[in-house]
Amino acid sequence: MVVNLEGKISKIGQNMKSSIIREILKFAADKDAISFGGGVPDPETFPRKELAEIAKEIIEKEYHYTLQYSTTEGDPVLKQQILKLLERMYGITGLDEDNLIFTVGSQQALDLIGKLFLDDESYCVLDDPAYLGAINAFRQYLANFVVVPLEDDGMDLNVLERKLSEFDKNGKIKQVKFIYVVSNFHNPAGVTTSLEKRKALVEIAEKYDLFIVEDDPYGALRYEGETVDPIFKIGGPERVVLLNTFSKVLAPGLRIGMVAGSKEFIRKIVQAKQSADLCSPAITHRLAARYLERYDLLEQLKPTIELYRRKRTVMLNALEEYFSDIPGVKWVKSEGGLFIWLTLPEGFDTWEMFEYAKRKKVFYVPGRVFKVYDEPSPSMRLSFCLPPDEKIVEGIKRLREVVLEYGKEKHLL
Amino acid sequence: MVVNLEGKISKIGQNMKSSIIREILKFAADKDAISFGGGVPDPETFPRKELAEIAKEIIEKEYHYTLQYSTTEGDPVLKQQILKLLERMYGITGLDEDNLIFTVGSQQALDLIGKLFLDDESYCVLDDPAYLGAINAFRQYLANFVVVPLEDDGMDLNVLERKLSEFDKNGKIKQVKFIYVVSNFHNPAGVTTSLEKRKALVEIAEKYDLFIVEDDPYGALRYEGETVDPIFKIGGPERVVLLNTFSKVLAPGLRIGMVAGSKEFIRKIVQAKQSADLCSPAITHRLAARYLERYDLLEQLKPTIELYRRKRTVMLNALEEYFSDIPGVKWVKSEGGLFIWLTLPEGFDTWEMFEYAKRKKVFYVPGRVFKVYDEPSPSMRLSFCLPPDEKIVEGIKRLREVVLEYGKEKHLL
Repeated sequence: MVVNLEGKISKIGQNMKSSIIREILKFAADKDAISFGGGVPDPETFPRKELAEIAKEIIEKEYHYTLQYSTTEGDPVLKQQILKLLERMYGITGLDEDNLIFTVGSQQALDLIGKLFLDDESYCVLDDPAYLGAINAFRQYLANFVVVPLEDDGMDLNVLERKLSEFDKNGKIKQVKFIYVVSNFHNPAGVTTSLEKRKALVEIAEKYDLFIVEDDPYGALRYEGETVDPIFKIGGPERVVLLNTFSKVLAPGLRIGMVAGSKEFIRKIVQAKQSADLCSPAITHRLAARYLERYDLLEQLKPTIELYRRKRTVMLNALEEYFSDIPGVKWVKSEGGLFIWLTLPEGFDTWEMFEYAKRKKVFYVPGRVFKVYDEPSPSMRLSFCLPPDEKIVEGIKRLREVVLEYGKEKHLL
Repeated sequence: MVVNLEGKISKIGQNMKSSIIREILKFAADKDAISFGGGVPDPETFPRKELAEIAKEIIEKEYHYTLQYSTTEGDPVLKQQILKLLERMYGITGLDEDNLIFTVGSQQALDLIGKLFLDDESYCVLDDPAYLGAINAFRQYLANFVVVPLEDDGMDLNVLERKLSEFDKNGKIKQVKFIYVVSNFHNPAGVTTSLEKRKALVEIAEKYDLFIVEDDPYGALRYEGETVDPIFKIGGPERVVLLNTFSKVLAPGLRIGMVAGSKEFIRKIVQAKQSADLCSPAITHRLAARYLERYDLLEQLKPTIELYRRKRTVMLNALEEYFSDIPGVKWVKSEGGLFIWLTLPEGFDTWEMFEYAKRKKVFYVPGRVFKVYDEPSPSMRLSFCLPPDEKIVEGIKRLREVVLEYGKEKHLL
């Protein structure tokens, strides 16, 4: 006899969605396929020899720590390294260990923040397009969303202010909990929030007593332009929570995410993580910690940055070559990160067009999956980090054929 | 300006509790303290040399896998090893990779099951006393509980049947989702559910269309008696979900938990894990996988079992020596696992008595923390796995003094 599982699913369970990207990437496994789909780093950039040596050492010599249960907050040795790194990268000072917790990737941080703050009566502010992992993490807790369009320099603050003031007028502002922002090289849109908008965001958050969740997985991967102060630095840990991760700068396989915030906020996250998984694997934390002690991460990262900078240029040039003659097409020249956001003329639906792309064996992520509510989108996310240079060019060429074919068939071109 | 964080906490967030054990264990850090508190394995039992060698190798040679994002389900190589182990340990056959998923410790499995199936209108069946990690994981999702007393051979099935039939009569049986059971060497109570009760549990679950969550972290740590068939084997994967972990048999630092269930059930857990943390660290999975390929876990475990068997005997003998003359005191001679459950005469409150224990520097976990609803308890959980033999004896001696002092002061003896 089989249990009636569907009849037992909770309200939250009914609200979960499978990762669409995951489904899409299945097609990309074909040998002849060229995939601009995943945001996964090139494995050749991982310092495998160094990490291998350290792993052996910390398991053999520090086994009391690395093989045992650890604290929910994570490795204090790694915390010291992170404090130094935050100061060096961004000039962030005044934090100590109690302002930090490590999570299983940034995804766990998003999940725990959703769990702690969102329910069916809550709202949070997301941009359009928004990071898919954040949409999924927040949506499952039955949350409602205030959706604000993303411009070339960050969220449209006029729309944000107008929407929040409406909540305020209706006496519902207390139901709005926080604003979620990917401040540098946005996933998927590639844009960086300007310093002016960062300051204005903090002012808006203070005015309406919201907090800001600043997600910064790509900040260290800047290929041009100047570092902009994090919102966290501008607004301080009592107003802003900073998420970061080692996934893009060291190795995703470590699954180390980080939350920096006020001590009160971190205590809450610790409590939520206790029920979620008790603690993270101590091996991965200590591995990252000893790596950071012995090697200069920012120096080690330089060849990786060079590699991605080159690949980005290859893709931008290919777009110039194969797309500049199609009227109404535009793309964001992001100054860093892993993605280029390509927008086709109005009427294009990159979700529907995906069937055409499958036939030509070129893969992208349709803009639709980054919509907070399921809607058609003329945009797509292109990741340049995995395919070799010539495949990038060949892929963009194929993509042109896809766009022309679909556009003509639908009478859009 | 500081954000008003308390005013923003979600309904779930308001329902979270800090781990009391964690708070208790802080006192145990004292050099002269003897702690029977934590259920943490002895680090000297970890095969550190073997794991160190393998870690180096898999990071250097299998970096494409170990340092990269992996799938949500976890390492297929480890799955093959687990399938073999389940067959060898319990004669469980007929499963394949799609019947398995790995989680960050069993705690994540409990959290995801809670998230998927429990909400404010749901009930699940827990025993009294119950495993604290399960209480916490399920309670946070606003669930309600059907609490059933635990007897020396498992749950009191008469009470269970009576309570469920009442739900059925009131038309509320669909709100009861599952029965949670720690089948071998229960934490905290030490008891093992008998074969008869396992079979009867499956029948009850079928009658009321519930599923059973069988948690088996200690099954491989048997010191006497015969292995009992898992409920999972009796009821099958369509009715029973089996949780297991490497924490007690290899190393907790790996943080590898396992869920075996029907393919439909595992797909649901995969979906929930995607939003929770995307995937686990591939390094830890592959490390366990290659270890299991090269070494015979059950053989390697023999010295550990010897060690714990001896420590258990030391504690049982000490209890015999120091407690058999106090009328009304009893303890469970568990056949395996890490805990002995000591119950003092009626009227004793081991939570209140903890203040006396602090002064004598001997630490236990008061029974109260294993109560589903916060109530006084005359019982306590004693873990014998960490202190050396002479400390076990000395600790039990101190505990006697604590009991006598408290008992006399409260006129209970």
